[in-house]
Amino acid sequence: MKLLFLSVGKPHETYVQSGIEEFTGRVGKYFPVSWQLIPAPKNAANMSELALKKAEALAILQQLQSDDYLILLDERGQQFNSPGVAQVIQQRANESCKRLVFLIGGAFGVDEPITKRANTVWSLSKLVFPHMLVRLILAEQIYRACSILKNEKYHHV
Amino acid sequence: MKLLFLSVGKPHETYVQSGIEEFTGRVGKYFPVSWQLIPAPKNAANMSELALKKAEALAILQQLQSDDYLILLDERGQQFNSPGVAQVIQQRANESCKRLVFLIGGAFGVDEPITKRANTVWSLSKLVFPHMLVRLILAEQIYRACSILKNEKYHHV
Repeated sequence: MKLLFLSVGKPHETYVQSGIEEFTGRVGKYFPVSWQLIPAPKNAANMSELALKKAEALAILQQLQSDDYLILLDERGQQFNSPGVAQVIQQRANESCKRLVFLIGGAFGVDEPITKRANTVWSLSKLVFPHMLVRLILAEQIYRACSILKNEKYHHV
Repeated sequence: MKLLFLSVGKPHETYVQSGIEEFTGRVGKYFPVSWQLIPAPKNAANMSELALKKAEALAILQQLQSDDYLILLDERGQQFNSPGVAQVIQQRANESCKRLVFLIGGAFGVDEPITKRANTVWSLSKLVFPHMLVRLILAEQIYRACSILKNEKYHHV
């Protein structure tokens, strides 16, 4: 199973970059993993919120394959604890899922068709985090989940 | 009102340092703010989990003043949304609180007397985050809360 971190927006900002690289690298010991960043549309600044979300949705759908298992990060989703995240990953692996995709939407969230396409909507917290920080939290949590699945020491309660 | 970020453990790791400094600096435009790090006891590696928590608790209590309002970050606490965090800060300011302290405990959490001393126990998420990342999330959320109180643009839903 491959993992893909898909995120709308700019390259990782400096303040999160080394952490994202570190934790993504560690995830790579368990699963082939990569980041795919989807740049905002060229005239995003002049677009309405809805038009922007629609343009982003098209770009997101172009990246997805029909048999991807899509986990959308959205504060209106379901919260998991860290072992719960591990379980979600394990279940996908057990189902012979080819690619597990974690999607971080744009500044205004994602358009309805993306929410419908998502197999799981995952809320990290009731709090709103900046998208750059969500990338770092995601990379760390997926590394943590992998370490939980292998009964390694990183996670302790 | 002053803000204090109190955290048990080592200096900020490189992967979070610039982010913590950036967001703490931004908080400083609203409130005088500082970090106080409490190093682990000298022979921590040889101490039982309980002994370590007791030693850390003593060191934490030494940093606290009787009229501090203490918010303990702990995953067993209450979750707030970002406007809720803003409200907690506003209420303290309204009550003429002198110092609002946010405490991040050690690797095994904090000892019972600290939990009892806490005026509020705040859970960021059901997820477990590494302590270094909690520091970054905390600094960002307190900046976000301040920007919400001033009706500034940073936070949008």
